[in-house]
Amino acid sequence: MHNALYEGKSKTIHPGEDESSLCIRFKDTATAFNGEKIAELPGKGKLNAAISNRIFAYLAAQGIRTHFIRALDETAIYVRKADIILVEVIVRNIAAGGFSKKYGVAEGTPLPNTVVEFCYKSDALGDPMLNDSQIMALGLASADELKVLTHQALRINTLLDAYFAKGGIRLVDFKLEFGRCDGEILLCDEISPDSCRLWDAETDEILDKDRFRRGLDNVLGGYQTVLGRLLNVC
Amino acid sequence: MHNALYEGKSKTIHPGEDESSLCIRFKDTATAFNGEKIAELPGKGKLNAAISNRIFAYLAAQGIRTHFIRALDETAIYVRKADIILVEVIVRNIAAGGFSKKYGVAEGTPLPNTVVEFCYKSDALGDPMLNDSQIMALGLASADELKVLTHQALRINTLLDAYFAKGGIRLVDFKLEFGRCDGEILLCDEISPDSCRLWDAETDEILDKDRFRRGLDNVLGGYQTVLGRLLNVC
Repeated sequence: MHNALYEGKSKTIHPGEDESSLCIRFKDTATAFNGEKIAELPGKGKLNAAISNRIFAYLAAQGIRTHFIRALDETAIYVRKADIILVEVIVRNIAAGGFSKKYGVAEGTPLPNTVVEFCYKSDALGDPMLNDSQIMALGLASADELKVLTHQALRINTLLDAYFAKGGIRLVDFKLEFGRCDGEILLCDEISPDSCRLWDAETDEILDKDRFRRGLDNVLGGYQTVLGRLLNVC
Repeated sequence: MHNALYEGKSKTIHPGEDESSLCIRFKDTATAFNGEKIAELPGKGKLNAAISNRIFAYLAAQGIRTHFIRALDETAIYVRKADIILVEVIVRNIAAGGFSKKYGVAEGTPLPNTVVEFCYKSDALGDPMLNDSQIMALGLASADELKVLTHQALRINTLLDAYFAKGGIRLVDFKLEFGRCDGEILLCDEISPDSCRLWDAETDEILDKDRFRRGLDNVLGGYQTVLGRLLNVC
């Protein structure tokens, strides 16, 4: 494989099959708290690639436009080269994590309406939350693009919530990234236990990166459970 | 005067003329950084009452519904008793303060569109920023109320920007509070150099509470300048 064009916290980006594609390799590195906590979890890259690929295939089959082209091997995928929008989209169904702390809502409280948040994709600034008027003032996205992002995020939430429910998993919250490509907006990045909060529907056992953030044992056991459940979902 | 029903950082609330009103007294106390910095500035209450009363009278004359009834004396006013909405509305025309720091935009940069932010009015939580879906999930205001708040904030910004401009002052940003009263939403609280950033249009001299936040001399000289300029505006 070529040298990385870019090395991120949990993925490396390499040249693709041609000028219009890239190759993304999922790393075993786990990071949390904006990179303050870091560890190698051998096998995480393979698990996340398998989970994310399955979810992207499901979403594509439901009509969501994504960057995914095909898997290269167990930890790498080819994707369409997109101009990543520097606005992360967070969708919340149940209060947890930063939302609970920031707004004083007990973890596990179901939210009466789906919460969609935008954050500035900037490690240097600590990914601060943004609203529509701020995003436009900063030139990060247009009003029309924000409508698409919100609409897509809510649709993906409906699809994923049902998908995980079939596997006995509660979709607590998750983060999405989008990119501009040939005049359309594509779902990019990954959807995995690194970017979602996923709880066992019966026991509320944590199956996602919060196991790592909170120093729980058997982090990848959670990820393996998620993959196993999804493999059993039609 | 009766004992205070409630003592805030810069105002005390007392019983009003009748059951449907309250009396607000402007204090000389200045606070910043969520109460971490505090000082007595003799005369601030009188200046802020005079400035805020003049601005509220101007806005009322332009059709904005406010809580203001009448002045009781130089530091106290009677207002309609409203159910304060726990969402502070911040309007920004020029990058400054927390916005500049949070999003990495140099102070003084004009914003290409007016930024309207909502914050949770909660000292305990540190007044965190909120978006519409979060406000609804927390039950702080309805979608219809948020439309009214945004519309009123933008209209007040247009009115105040022109008003201050006549006095040779740039309206950088400001904070508004609203309340529910008899089926309508009223502009409440105050509009003063405690709640606005105001710069001299020629020299960019700071005329507001940032003089106090930053330890500049002659804090009330700025407030006095603002009042003097507004008294000369028709």
